[in-house]
Formats: sequence, C-alpha cells, structure tokens
Amino acid sequence: MQRALTREEQDWIEHTLASMSLREKIGQTMQDHAGRLPFKGNDEAALAAYLKTYPVGSFFIGGEVIQKAAGKAEEYRDWAEQLQRISKYPLLFSGDLEFGAGSAVKSLTAFPPLLGLAAADDEALAYEYGKFTAMEGRAAGFTWALAPGTDLLLNWMNPVITTRCLGDDAKRAARLAGAVMRGMQDHGLAACAKHFPGDGVDYRDQHIVTTINGLSEEEWFATYGQVSQHMIDQGVLSYMTGHIALPWLEGNVQGEIPVPATVSARITTELLRGRMGFEGVVLSDALDMGGFLAWGGYEKRMVDCFNSGTDVLLWPGVDYFEVMEQAVREGTVRMERLDASVRRVLELKALLGVHRVDQKGRDPQAVPLLNDRLPPKLDLEARQLSRTIAERCITLVRNRGDILPLNPQTTRRVLVILLNKVTEGRKYERMNVFVELLRARGLQVDILDEFEPLSTLRKWELSGIRWDAAFAPYFLPLHGMMNTARPVGEAAKAIWAMQHAETIRPIGISFATPYLLQDMPFLDALINAYSLHEETVELTVKALFGEVPFQGQSPVKADPQDGSLDLRGLHHHEH
Amino acid sequence: MQRALTREEQDWIEHTLASMSLREKIGQTMQDHAGRLPFKGNDEAALAAYLKTYPVGSFFIGGEVIQKAAGKAEEYRDWAEQLQRISKYPLLFSGDLEFGAGSAVKSLTAFPPLLGLAAADDEALAYEYGKFTAMEGRAAGFTWALAPGTDLLLNWMNPVITTRCLGDDAKRAARLAGAVMRGMQDHGLAACAKHFPGDGVDYRDQHIVTTINGLSEEEWFATYGQVSQHMIDQGVLSYMTGHIALPWLEGNVQGEIPVPATVSARITTELLRGRMGFEGVVLSDALDMGGFLAWGGYEKRMVDCFNSGTDVLLWPGVDYFEVMEQAVREGTVRMERLDASVRRVLELKALLGVHRVDQKGRDPQAVPLLNDRLPPKLDLEARQLSRTIAERCITLVRNRGDILPLNPQTTRRVLVILLNKVTEGRKYERMNVFVELLRARGLQVDILDEFEPLSTLRKWELSGIRWDAAFAPYFLPLHGMMNTARPVGEAAKAIWAMQHAETIRPIGISFATPYLLQDMPFLDALINAYSLHEETVELTVKALFGEVPFQGQSPVKADPQDGSLDLRGLHHHEH
Repeated sequence: MQRALTREEQDWIEHTLASMSLREKIGQTMQDHAGRLPFKGNDEAALAAYLKTYPVGSFFIGGEVIQKAAGKAEEYRDWAEQLQRISKYPLLFSGDLEFGAGSAVKSLTAFPPLLGLAAADDEALAYEYGKFTAMEGRAAGFTWALAPGTDLLLNWMNPVITTRCLGDDAKRAARLAGAVMRGMQDHGLAACAKHFPGDGVDYRDQHIVTTINGLSEEEWFATYGQVSQHMIDQGVLSYMTGHIALPWLEGNVQGEIPVPATVSARITTELLRGRMGFEGVVLSDALDMGGFLAWGGYEKRMVDCFNSGTDVLLWPGVDYFEVMEQAVREGTVRMERLDASVRRVLELKALLGVHRVDQKGRDPQAVPLLNDRLPPKLDLEARQLSRTIAERCITLVRNRGDILPLNPQTTRRVLVILLNKVTEGRKYERMNVFVELLRARGLQVDILDEFEPLSTLRKWELSGIRWDAAFAPYFLPLHGMMNTARPVGEAAKAIWAMQHAETIRPIGISFATPYLLQDMPFLDALINAYSLHEETVELTVKALFGEVPFQGQSPVKADPQDGSLDLRGLHHHEH
Repeated sequence: MQRALTREEQDWIEHTLASMSLREKIGQTMQDHAGRLPFKGNDEAALAAYLKTYPVGSFFIGGEVIQKAAGKAEEYRDWAEQLQRISKYPLLFSGDLEFGAGSAVKSLTAFPPLLGLAAADDEALAYEYGKFTAMEGRAAGFTWALAPGTDLLLNWMNPVITTRCLGDDAKRAARLAGAVMRGMQDHGLAACAKHFPGDGVDYRDQHIVTTINGLSEEEWFATYGQVSQHMIDQGVLSYMTGHIALPWLEGNVQGEIPVPATVSARITTELLRGRMGFEGVVLSDALDMGGFLAWGGYEKRMVDCFNSGTDVLLWPGVDYFEVMEQAVREGTVRMERLDASVRRVLELKALLGVHRVDQKGRDPQAVPLLNDRLPPKLDLEARQLSRTIAERCITLVRNRGDILPLNPQTTRRVLVILLNKVTEGRKYERMNVFVELLRARGLQVDILDEFEPLSTLRKWELSGIRWDAAFAPYFLPLHGMMNTARPVGEAAKAIWAMQHAETIRPIGISFATPYLLQDMPFLDALINAYSLHEETVELTVKALFGEVPFQGQSPVKADPQDGSLDLRGLHHHEH
C-alpha cells in the first residue's frame, strides 16, 4: 500500500487540510479511547456533541484489549459507521490486533501470538496472518492495527514483550514482521510497527517506569535498527514510539532523568525520520503509562511529545486540545509542524480509502460480515490458518530421555501440577481447558493445585499412587503479574512442591513465557505452546501423545543448557 | 569459644561415643524439627517413645520462624529442659536467630536485620548483637544459632538473601560477621555461618531450585572465600552448606545437573575443610528444599549428603535412621566417617557445656529468665541495643533537592501510597504501623491503597487537594513472594498509579529490599529502613522530620544513579 497517492487523493488531502480549523487540526493529532468516553457509547446526541467540542481524528477501540476480547464484529462495525456519520472528517479506528482480529473482537479469529508465528518461521504464513487480521479487522471497522511488534527478546527477563514479538533474532523478526505488515497493508489495514526504538532489553515495564534500551549504537543497528529499517523500506505506514530511552543517542536529562522516545526529538525525528528515512505516521505509545508520566506536568508532556516528532498522540485526554491551542498561540508548537503532522494523517486516511465512506458511514473496502464473521469461504480460510499456525508453532524445547511423545496405549493415569496460581486468591482459570482435554481422552487426571503441605505429592506416592506421566502447565496472562513474567508466588511454590515427588518426571508446558527452564532447570521435558489459543492447546495435547508432530523451532534461546543464557539473567546475543 | 577441649570434656566425648549404638550415632548426625513432631509437643510419654526410636542429636525449634516468632521464652526453655530430661544424650537446640533471639521467640528482643547492622557498620555493635542474641537465646534453651549470614548481595535480583546478609562488600561482611559470631560464641551460643559456598549470585531461590554461584575461582576467593576464611580463622563453630552449586570447582553431573554443596565432596570436604581448614561442624541447609530434592531419590540424597562431608543433616525426616543403618551395613557409609562426624558433634556439645545440664535438664550456663525476658538490667541493655542499632541503620539513599528532612511546622497533610499489596487478596498489614505513627503526630493522612482507577490521585489533585509530603512505603516479607523481592503485581501497579499525580515528589521508604530505586528510579528521595522492626519504623518517622539524623551508610549500591548497577540487572562489583 506504499504506493504513490493519486491525484484525487492529493486533492482531498489538501482541500481537507485547508478547510480545518485549528482545533480540528489538533484533533487529527490525537487518538481517543472509545472505551473511556464520558457517556454511553451509542448515545448519538452525546457523541455528536462530544465530537463537535473534541474533533478527534481517530479512535482506539477495544476496552481491556490486552487481556480479553469482547463483543461481536457487527457491533464494532455499526459503532464505527455511526461515528463516521457523525464525524465531520473521516475517522480511523485502531485496535491492538496483535494476534489477529480476535485479539480485539471475540467473534473474530484469534491466532497464536507472534512468538508462535516466529516458531513456525514461515514468511508465507506470516503474510496470511497479516492478511486475515486485515480482512476481518476492516470488516469490523478497523483501519489501523497497532501491530505487528518489532521488538526483540534480548533480555529474557523482560516482563512486557514475552510472546508479543518475533523472538531474539533480528533477521527472522525483520522477515516475518515485514510479511505480517505487507499482509495487513495489502488488505486495507494500516500496520503500526512497535515499539521504536525497541523493547526487550530492560527487565522492567514501561507501564511502570521509563525503560532503557541500553545497547551501544553498533549493537542497536545490528538488532532493532535492522528490523526497523526493513519495516521502513518495506513501506510500513506507521510506527509507534515507546516510553523507552536510548542512551547511545540521548543521555539522561540533568544526568538523572531518562528521555523516552516519546519526548525525544533525537530518537523520533533525527533517527527514525532523518537517519532511517521513515515518512509515515508516528504514533506515541499510550500516554497514561508510568514511563511517560514521569516526564513532567501535563502541558510539558503533551507539547514535548508532539514536538519530538509525534504525529498522533495515543490517549492524551481531551485537555490536549486546550494545551495545544495555547501552545500554538504562544509559538511553542509551530503551525507548520502541526500542518505537517495533519498532512501525514490525512495521507494515511487517503491511502486507506476512509475518505470514501458513504453518507451512512459505510466503508466500501470492508468485506460484509455474516453472523459477526467473514463470509463462509473466507471465514473457513481464517480458521484453517489459525489451526495451521497452531500446528506449526508448538515447540519441543527439551526432551531428555525421549520421554515424549507419550504412548497413548500405556498412559492411563496422569498428574497435573497447575502452575497457574500466582498467589492466594489469584488463579488463572483458563488452564482448565488443558485438564478437560486430558479427561476427554479417558485419562484419569489427578490435580495438584494446593501447595501446602508441600509433601502432598510424596504422600500420594507413598500411598501407592503411580502416574504414567506428569504435566506442569504454566500460564500467566500478559500483564497478569505486572513487572515480571516469571513464576513467582504460589507458582514458585508449586515448583518446590512438585520436587517432593520421586516417581515422576514432570513435563513442563508453558502457555506463556518461553523461558520456563530458567526457573525449572530440572525439567526433563519442556514444550512451549506460547498461549492458551484454543487450537494450540488441543494440538499440544495431541502432540503429547504423538498424534501430531512438534513442528515449532524455538525463536529464542529457551534452553539454558545450550550455554547461551547467562546464569545471572542475560542473553549472550551474537550480533 | 574456640579454645582447646579440657581433659574432662575429651573424656566425656570419647566415653559417650564409645557407649553409643549405631542408631544413636546416626541420631547425632540428624537435626529434627520440633514443630513437625507427629504428636503434641509436650506429651512426655510420646516424646520418650519417639526419642527411644529416633535418638536424634539436636532439635530445631521455631515453627514458621522465617516469617514470625511466637511464644514465650520460658515455654521454650521448659520444653528444652523436658527434652534434656528425656533424652539419653544431651541435645542441642537450634533456631534461626538471625536478627536476635526475638526472631524465634516473640517475648525476646528482635533486632534490625543484618543488612541494617551493616548500615550501622560498627564492629562493637555487631559484637553486642551476637552477645545479646546468645544471652537471650541460651536463656530460652537455644545453644545453636543458624546465624550469622555470610552471604553477599552480589546480584541485586537475588530473592532470598535481601536483608539477611551484611551487604555486598566482602571486607565489611567479614569484619561484622566475625564480630557477631564472636559475640555469640563468647556467650554460650554456637554460631553457624551460612551459607557455604555463598548465596547472592543467582537470581533464584534454593527453596525452588539448586542455584548457581557462578563466580570464577578468583572472584570467589576475593569475595565469599574471604568472608568464609575469616569466619573459620576466627573460630566459628559450625558452617551451613547451601543447595548452591559452584561450577568453578564442581561442574554439572552429566553436563546437566548442577551439584549443590550439600552433596558435593569437592565443595564441602575438599574446599571447606581441606583447603580452607574448617574443623567445626558442617550442618546442611534444610533438606526439604527444592534445590536439594532435585538431586535424586531419598536414599541417594541422604547418603550423598552425609558422604559429601556433612556432619549434621537438617530435617532429613526419621526415615534417615533406616537409610543410614542400611548404608553402614552395605559399606556405602563408612563407620570411621560416621564416628568422625559424631565426634565433631560431641565436641560442639562439650564446648557449649550441654553435657553439664542437671538431672532436671536445667542448663547451668543459661541466665535465668524473668517474665520471659532476661533479668531487668540485662533486659534493658538488650532493648537499648535494639534501639541503638535502629538509630544507626536508617539510611538516606537519595535526597534530590534536599526534600528531607521535612519541616514539622509546615507539614500538615500527607499522602501515603501503600506499596504493601502484592495482588488482590494479598496485602501485608504491618505497614499500618507507619501510618499510625504519622497520625499520632497530628498529621492528616490520605491513603492510596487501591490502584484502580489509576487516575485517582490526579482526580484528588484536580479537586484541589494538596499534600505537604507524599510517602511511598514498601514492604514485602522475606519469602513473602517466592522467587522475587521486587515490587510486582499490585505493588508495581501502585508505582504506576502514583505517577499520575503532578504535585507530589514521593519519598520512597523501603522496609524490605534495599534496591527499590531499580524499580522506582524516578524517586527524588529514598530511605532504606531494612525492616519493620518496631523502633526502626518509629525512628524512621522521626528522621523524616529531622528529629533524629539519618546515620546509616548503605552497605550495598542502592542508587543506580551512581552508575554501578547494570541496567540489565547485574552489579559491576569491584574486587
């Protein structure tokens, strides 16, 4: 989609820009949050009044999208159409469509996460991943995906990226992210590579603090720089800057305060636009995150964010309008700079064809939905793709003594030690699916999910119970335990408890972090399944019994036995 | 106490050894857990039957001693006397008296933790710390402290050591640990330095897995080796081996399985006894920990532990007797080796004078208790010592803009953001003491301890509320969140929430990890108080208002701004 604009499109852009008031221009540089409107979302009168006062240029749709999707695709589409009718200028609708449109909309297709796609390591599959995300997303009203991730898991302790990136190898990540992006953009959805200048080095979380990408300039260009440049060269339409500092380029202010990319002209303008040649839309990461709030007071944050080179600010809040009007009046924000950003936003809108929505707000490029899904033929393809990626991603990381696959004939009674409990009162229920699949095979399943007394398993053994296999499935949702992705609390206690048994060789199955062996080095076997994606869990159980092969190739150094994970927590990464 | 044995003592040792059956000898090499007896603890008939069948040589007393102390000193003493009456041979009674006898016995004096003592950095004070631990401990029946810690915080991410060690500098740790030990041993309490070969390098927890002390030989001798050698030269009577591997000396078995010191002859016999010259009693760390369980089946674990050079196994369980009898019969454990350990245990008992308990089990060396405490004069000294250490340990780590001390005249209304919540349902109440002390000063105290919505503080500000100061106190009990000491979960969310406010400059106060600035780098001020020791909290509040000075000197590199904490989690430690 990185084609040149047509004459019609250029005219529309210039005409629209010329017709905008200052406030309307400001609105183009702001992306509002549809889940945080101060009134009921389909109150048309309230929406109209809101948009009149706050003429925002785009909406993020999706509620608590990081953790769960909700709702029906047709509802999303209807709401988007309603907004288009009301809005004076055509709107963009964005979503965290990181793992398929199902990430945001429950009735659509959810794929395994990016790390699973990387384990499948197939460029054609990655293209399809982007393509169906786009077709389903656009049908539901989305024109802008805040995806794909171009981060790299260079620090296995990073608590934020986990399965939302394509691994630790820059070449592979570039190749696959580029394919996802092209799949998206060839089918009507703008991609937004994220995050710039790259998450995955720090052990901390930008929701909490400004994190530090501490690579040297050389290291950076060999890793994140490589991926970003590839995305830019391949025509990604937007890039998201993160609340991530890049010391090799911009040191601390007053020696103390790290400068996140979201307020850094050096990172956003000099490096991303200047040196690397990016010409698309720069979107900031969410401005309510701790890593951004630390920068200063509201006005300073907004103006510095815009002036650093951001085109669209993500969730600045409606006070943004007043702050920017004031700044323009005072000259702190120059009109030419504002116009440049608005122009880039309008170019994006033109390329996406949103200026062609009809008077009822309907999008001519969107595939019509049927029962909240794509029409049957396309829907089937989407579901098949989901299954194919699941088949291709499940990774056998370790298999000492070839204990896998298990023999379905002789495996009758199994033990499941549930590592889904963080601490008393906080348990992640979705792992019951795994247990139910085992039971559905006719297996007798004993479960350990209470870890006091620690000797429970040993007592069971001493009473004569023997299991043909023992599983230790681990799950922690993204952001489920802020500031770490490792087993802590009761999950750590479970790891202690399981070692009291003497007759079992537990098989670890991580449905989250790929680095479970760091905290469970004694496991004889580990499978990385990357998520609780329904078909992935189903296929993982089949693979346990040899009914399907393990096809995934680990896109990270998941086994510290191969010598490449520093015992103190660092990768030795070659670059 | 590292004097030569008297003739009387030598005779007692040899006579006792010669009179022992095989089973009784085995019993000397086992330390039982008084809190895990299979019957009510003061059922004399049951105790007698138990000790007849299982003639253990020592008992650990203390229940859940790592997290809380319970009970009255006279009750402990009475129980010990009862056991001495019943036992054929005199018993040793041990406890985790890491921070004073109050660590194990509620009615006795609790001191600030070792890290606080290191912040006070006073050898005379350290000696007193040991002395009063001994006097109170012995009065309550204890003859063996599983203390002091000789570990070093070389990896700030270590989740186990935290405040239980003397910092990251080997010279200081050696000096102070030696003083604590001498204070103990000069007053009738055997010290047990722990752990060998040294905890604090790994980011993991021996309760969960065998951890790795990955230092090179040279690095090790410059750090842990230095501390251990000092303790040995100064005459420490016992040393505890940990479930910690030391790759420079003993590599993995079959390339895969790390060899914890507790089963390693190279570490325990060749290094600790041979090369470093330790002649006292080697006690293993608790044998129910994950880091030990991974070694193999029960018999293998017990025999390998004993044969590696352990004299006393900690909590092996009563099946130990049968396993060892079998091993001696088969020759897997040699009788000379068993005799050597028994002799060392009896030497320890003789040096401690436990062979002189009278027929009622009373210990002539114990100071008589009054109302569960030492007699008034000594008791007063103990309490004064506790206060003195508290005064001396509170450390002002950072104070940008000299915001501390606060002006008590102008500080009227304060905000407290409570970082004591790990996740929903798990909150650590003891921090209420801090809040109550503020209220007792007549301050108006607003509390934030619910972190949704995140914008709560900002709303309060926008409604006009202003605070004269804002505090962010952090607490996580040792082992409170297994496998990490960092703020995770709701505590991390609290850090996010507090940054929404624009009019506050939060003052961090850590009552736990000294490394809070790693996760809260934006703080203008941080106080390390190291624990919720009652007087420490009281004095911390006074120090906030300039009523007492901050006297502590940080015994670790607590401020990453000084450039010495790797952003990826490692110390750059000079040695």
